[in-house]
Amino acid sequence: FAEVTKIANDDYVGFTFFVGCMAMMAASAFFFLSMNNFDRKWKTSILVSGLITFIAAVHYWYMRDYWGAIGESPTFFRYVDWVLTVPLMCVEFYLILRVAGAKKSLMWRLIFLSVIMLVTGYLGEAVYIDQAWLWGLISGIAYFIIVYDIWLGSAKKLAVQAGGSVLKAHKMLCWFVLVGWAIYPIGYMAGTPGWYEGIFGGLAMDVIYNIGDAINKIGFGLVVYGAAVASQEKSA
Amino acid sequence: FAEVTKIANDDYVGFTFFVGCMAMMAASAFFFLSMNNFDRKWKTSILVSGLITFIAAVHYWYMRDYWGAIGESPTFFRYVDWVLTVPLMCVEFYLILRVAGAKKSLMWRLIFLSVIMLVTGYLGEAVYIDQAWLWGLISGIAYFIIVYDIWLGSAKKLAVQAGGSVLKAHKMLCWFVLVGWAIYPIGYMAGTPGWYEGIFGGLAMDVIYNIGDAINKIGFGLVVYGAAVASQEKSA
Ligand SMILES: CC1=C(/C=C/C(C)=C/C=C/C(C)=C/C=O)C(C)(C)CCC1
Ligand SMILES: CC1=C(/C=C/C(C)=C/C=C/C(C)=C/C=O)C(C)(C)CCC1
Repeated sequence: FAEVTKIANDDYVGFTFFVGCMAMMAASAFFFLSMNNFDRKWKTSILVSGLITFIAAVHYWYMRDYWGAIGESPTFFRYVDWVLTVPLMCVEFYLILRVAGAKKSLMWRLIFLSVIMLVTGYLGEAVYIDQAWLWGLISGIAYFIIVYDIWLGSAKKLAVQAGGSVLKAHKMLCWFVLVGWAIYPIGYMAGTPGWYEGIFGGLAMDVIYNIGDAINKIGFGLVVYGAAVASQEKSA
Repeated sequence: FAEVTKIANDDYVGFTFFVGCMAMMAASAFFFLSMNNFDRKWKTSILVSGLITFIAAVHYWYMRDYWGAIGESPTFFRYVDWVLTVPLMCVEFYLILRVAGAKKSLMWRLIFLSVIMLVTGYLGEAVYIDQAWLWGLISGIAYFIIVYDIWLGSAKKLAVQAGGSVLKAHKMLCWFVLVGWAIYPIGYMAGTPGWYEGIFGGLAMDVIYNIGDAINKIGFGLVVYGAAVASQEKSA
């Protein structure tokens, strides 16, 4: 038997950690087991989708237990998770645009920006909490550059060039980054004392982050999956 | 529920152990799941890349918990890990050069040298700490012979003979050994009392080693993966 702790029926944070953990595991199984239905060009993209949810599944496992045992926000694990999965999402952008001739430099640029965004976010959220606004600002700037790059910059041009299911997938992923990722700064503000804490109530931050993760990690992967299906059907 | 320990938000050593552990797991999944996309010549190389990161994932799991529970450098586990993974990297060199007619004797020579390097390094770091300089010196000599062998010795000749993606991969791996592996003697010096301890501060040694491992194990594997992709695309 596994060790068991009682969970309060109205522990919604705990509930979303459990649901999130299982959803990530199921999504990983789905991506890993279906990747071989596709040709090589798409296989790697779907494998990376699976890695993203797999990494998240492991961290949700920790976070769930951490929450159950200690009852605090597992900020540490969240950022360990993000610092691995967000760069992998940047890889995903590159993989999709590779057919249109995307260069590795685009990938490294996005990865670099995302790491800046997350490291400064961590410093503001967990280490230099008094300067949360400053670190959040730097983080936000990096975030906006990413948004600009994929919506209007070189990535956009490549997607238009490729057209078809690549363009469609790119556009969807762009929306994820603009709307889905924007959930996180909201969570950050909800978790920063003296900000909008009152509106959401301190603990809701974790619920916000958990919903964001489910949308962004699983949804992002499903868009890639859908693009692969569409491109396969057209060529069949 | 897993046993949970609290981790301080500014415990950067702990942070790199966690990120390292998860990155190694994800990399293993990536190599294992993608190896079947390649033809036989490359399949084994990618499998070995996966073994290297898998071995590391298990040891990072131990080291992470050791650090969390005891708060000391897990030198013991580190060398257990290296003594398995570094010889496997030597196997990787051999596998890549096999097409050019590399002999098994080259592989055994590199393996032998790497074991000397690591056993003497362990003696200096963990057992005869007072003679750290002597053991470090012997270890360093073995390291330099490895560098010489692959950069200028017989391995080099074979790589030039093979040309193409083999030569390119070999050159990249050579850079890993020269620059990436050089991170470890720096960590050794940072961890040896009375040396450059002051510059880095005692504990930074583990951060240095962890960054080195991520670069060398995952990066090394990705170079092999990239070579396999390149050679496949050319022949397709
Ligand atoms: C802009 C901004 C942030 C952005 C975080 C983002 C965009 C995280 C994305 C995470 C994803 C996509 C994870 C899952 O898969 C922080 C760090 C909260 C700090 C405040 C400013
Ligand atoms: C030269 C030298 C060392 C070299 C260690 C190396 C080169 C380790 C490489 C490890 C790798 C590549 C591991 C991971 O994959 C020691 C033992 C620190 C002792 C001091 C002298």
